Amino acid sequence: MASREFSITQDVLDRMHPENERFGTVMVSLIRHLHDFIRDVQLTEEEWMAAIQFLTKTGQITTDKRQEFILLSDTLGVSILVDAINHRLPEGATEQTVLGPYYWEGAPRLPMGSDIAKGIKGEPCFFSGQVTSLDGSPIEGVELDVWSGDGEGNYDMQLGSDEMLCRATFTTGNDGKYWFRSIKPFYYPVPDDGPVGDMLRAMGRHPNRPGHTHFIVRAPGHKTIVTHLFPSDSPYLDSDTVFGVKEGLIVDFVRHEPGVAPTGEKVDVPFYTCEYHFQLAPLDVVNA
Amino acid sequence: MASREFSITQDVLDRMHPENERFGTVMVSLIRHLHDFIRDVQLTEEEWMAAIQFLTKTGQITTDKRQEFILLSDTLGVSILVDAINHRLPEGATEQTVLGPYYWEGAPRLPMGSDIAKGIKGEPCFFSGQVTSLDGSPIEGVELDVWSGDGEGNYDMQLGSDEMLCRATFTTGNDGKYWFRSIKPFYYPVPDDGPVGDMLRAMGRHPNRPGHTHFIVRAPGHKTIVTHLFPSDSPYLDSDTVFGVKEGLIVDFVRHEPGVAPTGEKVDVPFYTCEYHFQLAPLDVVNA
Repeated sequence: MASREFSITQDVLDRMHPENERFGTVMVSLIRHLHDFIRDVQLTEEEWMAAIQFLTKTGQITTDKRQEFILLSDTLGVSILVDAINHRLPEGATEQTVLGPYYWEGAPRLPMGSDIAKGIKGEPCFFSGQVTSLDGSPIEGVELDVWSGDGEGNYDMQLGSDEMLCRATFTTGNDGKYWFRSIKPFYYPVPDDGPVGDMLRAMGRHPNRPGHTHFIVRAPGHKTIVTHLFPSDSPYLDSDTVFGVKEGLIVDFVRHEPGVAPTGEKVDVPFYTCEYHFQLAPLDVVNA
Repeated sequence: MASREFSITQDVLDRMHPENERFGTVMVSLIRHLHDFIRDVQLTEEEWMAAIQFLTKTGQITTDKRQEFILLSDTLGVSILVDAINHRLPEGATEQTVLGPYYWEGAPRLPMGSDIAKGIKGEPCFFSGQVTSLDGSPIEGVELDVWSGDGEGNYDMQLGSDEMLCRATFTTGNDGKYWFRSIKPFYYPVPDDGPVGDMLRAMGRHPNRPGHTHFIVRAPGHKTIVTHLFPSDSPYLDSDTVFGVKEGLIVDFVRHEPGVAPTGEKVDVPFYTCEYHFQLAPLDVVNA
């Protein structure tokens, strides 16, 4: 009967006659790997049932505000792997990272220099920099979509706000320069009161992400990038639970005593500055 | 950047420090195979999102009456593979197959010879046989748990019945013999109005199972088996959508003209007889 343990895989593959060739290719590989996994670990019936229950719970806790399967994908390194495969960039280009679950389309278009964190908890931070091509030439009319949680790591969605907080879209002039005021981002845990939280605990892992400010940078004639900037002094930089940290996205957020900010305004508490140069790959870069 | 596509897998594995060693072993293999699958097919972001949505729907359509993840496992050959790994039986032993989603615990204990399909649609069928050890010696006090759909392939649960239909538990005497009346089982489709149905259609597969009568055979001193008997003239024997058919479980259901049944009763429509000899492995058979 041992042969059935091996012949079953080919039986399942032989049963398929998909119209869509690509769907067939994906399913053949999926079925092979799934069966190999089960044989490799000699999965018990109790473990199989635990897996069925885990997957069911993961679907059932998902709502339009919480996507537990994306969180599962993130925490197993799947999201960042899919990202890496689909966004191969040339040397020197700013790296991409995960979108995350807190993106909210349609952030307000604000004039350059705006404070996007008015009334929000956190240490003030002045972001500035430039968006250029790989050869360093400034790009005109770049759109920057920016968002983060507050200075305690909570996003507007989590604060129960119907209004967008700490989000904005800016458009650069012909020099590709940007500058705005927000807060220094803070580390926070991903939601860990569901099946993924149970999995992380069983793995001996913490649920935290280091602090980060999200950017989507859209520039005419260039590849759009979805990325974060991480303060170099944040906890969990070496153990981001969704594996989103890349060396080139870690930035020194410089601390300043109360005084005059780069925008000319007076700040009566200590504040930070974060300067970052986004360098974008051309549209025709080959993804292979 | 290509190296990140490969290094990420080890990064995820290195992050784990599970207390439970077996959990660690299973997760290491799962993560390796999952990442290898994604690299093998070069999964696109659209495909990844489709997978997230498929899994979410599969969880959300699941209720206490419908388990779509078990159906997914069944239709991908996973359930029968787990079964094969966990129930390696010696030559000559009656083979095991899937439990299926329609098992209902606590079937009525009826005297041997009962008609378990009173008032049920279908062609009458008289089941009989013996339960023995591998050496052919009868086993005393064997419990047979029997169930099936009606003669059109519908189970009581599907007919909306609160009462058990076509289910019973029998106990043999010291000769290990059993006999009862039911119906000849009919082929039927698994539920195909959910995500698994969509998957089967995309694979170019039908959703049908060949007709079968379920048995759980529990005998003192022997391994319990969960199995089916399939009529040899049923459609879909060569393409059971859950891969449950095994050669040794296909039985000739013999057709008889109206007349006197083996139980002595008169039957005024054509009827069938099904004779099957269950041969059970000893309890101490090594599962390796």
